[in-house]
Amino acid sequence: MKLKAMYSFLNTDLREVEKELEETIQSDYAQLSEAALHLLQAGGKRIRPVFVLLAAKFGDYDIERIKHVAVALELIHMASLVHDDVIDDAELRRGRQTIKAKWSNRFAMYTGDYMFARSLERMTRLDHPLAHQVLANTIVEVCRGEIEQIKDKYRFEQNLRCYLRRIKRKTALLIAASCQLGAIVADAPKDVAERLYLFGYYVGMAFQITDDILDFTGTEAQLGKPAGSDLLQGNVTLPVLFAMENNEQLKAKITTVVRPETTPEEMKEIIALIKQTDAIEKSYELSDRYLHKALRVLETLPNNKARSTLYDIAKYIGKRDY
Amino acid sequence: MKLKAMYSFLNTDLREVEKELEETIQSDYAQLSEAALHLLQAGGKRIRPVFVLLAAKFGDYDIERIKHVAVALELIHMASLVHDDVIDDAELRRGRQTIKAKWSNRFAMYTGDYMFARSLERMTRLDHPLAHQVLANTIVEVCRGEIEQIKDKYRFEQNLRCYLRRIKRKTALLIAASCQLGAIVADAPKDVAERLYLFGYYVGMAFQITDDILDFTGTEAQLGKPAGSDLLQGNVTLPVLFAMENNEQLKAKITTVVRPETTPEEMKEIIALIKQTDAIEKSYELSDRYLHKALRVLETLPNNKARSTLYDIAKYIGKRDY
Repeated sequence: MKLKAMYSFLNTDLREVEKELEETIQSDYAQLSEAALHLLQAGGKRIRPVFVLLAAKFGDYDIERIKHVAVALELIHMASLVHDDVIDDAELRRGRQTIKAKWSNRFAMYTGDYMFARSLERMTRLDHPLAHQVLANTIVEVCRGEIEQIKDKYRFEQNLRCYLRRIKRKTALLIAASCQLGAIVADAPKDVAERLYLFGYYVGMAFQITDDILDFTGTEAQLGKPAGSDLLQGNVTLPVLFAMENNEQLKAKITTVVRPETTPEEMKEIIALIKQTDAIEKSYELSDRYLHKALRVLETLPNNKARSTLYDIAKYIGKRDY
Repeated sequence: MKLKAMYSFLNTDLREVEKELEETIQSDYAQLSEAALHLLQAGGKRIRPVFVLLAAKFGDYDIERIKHVAVALELIHMASLVHDDVIDDAELRRGRQTIKAKWSNRFAMYTGDYMFARSLERMTRLDHPLAHQVLANTIVEVCRGEIEQIKDKYRFEQNLRCYLRRIKRKTALLIAASCQLGAIVADAPKDVAERLYLFGYYVGMAFQITDDILDFTGTEAQLGKPAGSDLLQGNVTLPVLFAMENNEQLKAKITTVVRPETTPEEMKEIIALIKQTDAIEKSYELSDRYLHKALRVLETLPNNKARSTLYDIAKYIGKRDY
């Protein structure tokens, strides 16, 4: 089953979110609208809005309220992507030129700021202090994760904990917040909101680990950018950490070869060497452990259509061949 | 009278704000705390917190509530300075190395993001939906102003309206919001908050124009950076626009000479030529017109200590020799 088919019953509401997203980023300055729209139209899974809507189904679901949360979270995600591309010096994102590549780093910085500001503005349409607090705390953590990512670039001595803390802040917390905020704004019971937060956190961890694996196992066509892009940009992800574990020879090679100027040929060799180890398998095992925890949390929630959809999505993320 | 002496009766509360500012930017990541503290300790006038506190005096003044607003607005201001320095490729700010110069553009981008996020988090300590809305709308406008500033760099054909719109968004609206939010959070009457907003807007316009004049008339010691820095970075400010008006020869010269590679000697000549025109005088006249409007608004407000202090500050900004 394709991912989108799992939540086709949300299509009308997701179209509404999409429309609002487009409206929100409009600006009287054409180049800015163009840049933001460029990013918006590059697609993406809109997985955060999907989680928001599904979580809201555990409370009083009102698309007119909940859509603001969905729009805000997707905009924060997009703003962080724009800033990430500046940091990573990335040329391509989802098969399209990045904003920093098409325009400039400076323009990308402010485009990110603008989308970020727009997302806040959107959230303030909701009179819900707790929701604002949760969102603000999440943004602080996301920023910390981004800063850690710069700090940890090309740092091959980092341990597993360091990686996990980074992806927690960088990815998992925003997905956790999507689930939590959907529930909170729909006035779902407090313990349901807490469990949805936990579900989102576990799924988010699995999601990022899978993403980090795909950067090695995917093709350029699937990824929309060359394989090994993360490592080329100095991001030391889980498969790299596992590959270097108890393998001093490979570790020495990676540490020596990987730098901003690594050639595509050198990178291909490194990728091949990493894939020859058990690193991919071990990474999948850790992702599976997070997914298992996510599913266990789901079982404690009221049994409804939203729950079974969250189950399907979690299972989908765990699949190894997409 | 020195600026700080005017509001010495706020000293205890301003120290509280300062302490909270320092606490807020602490992070478990040392380099980030260091960078934020570097900027914080570079000083600055803390004029936004001062306006917040003074405006709150028109309502139920409670420093425990109002300090969050003061901290949030100063952090937003500082975050925008950090991002501005990336855009302007600035090496010095207030006589100190900028964060982008001392660390890197990328680090500066995330330091700005982090301070921005922290400011939001701080605001959410207040349960005041209208305040959040006003702040979010203001941030959107500030971002727009920043983007306009990139767009308008080295664009010598721009007119006065273009300049005024830019400084409105870039500076005046944040000062207007400081006044408005101080009043709103202290539950001052609605019309008082509106008039304080207007006062802040006029003062902010005068403040930025004066700042833009000083970039030509000030010494490097006064400015903490070389004179003519704005123009060197391609920012076409009011004195430049007035100098080029009806002076095709000077306009041709400026348009030809000013570019990112302009030498300090060339810039000195340009500055001298601009100062020989009536551009500085005309700029002061416009600043005076805004100040006059600000004072007129003040006269309609309840007569209290805060009002007379706002009056003194506005007068101070209008002084031509500080």
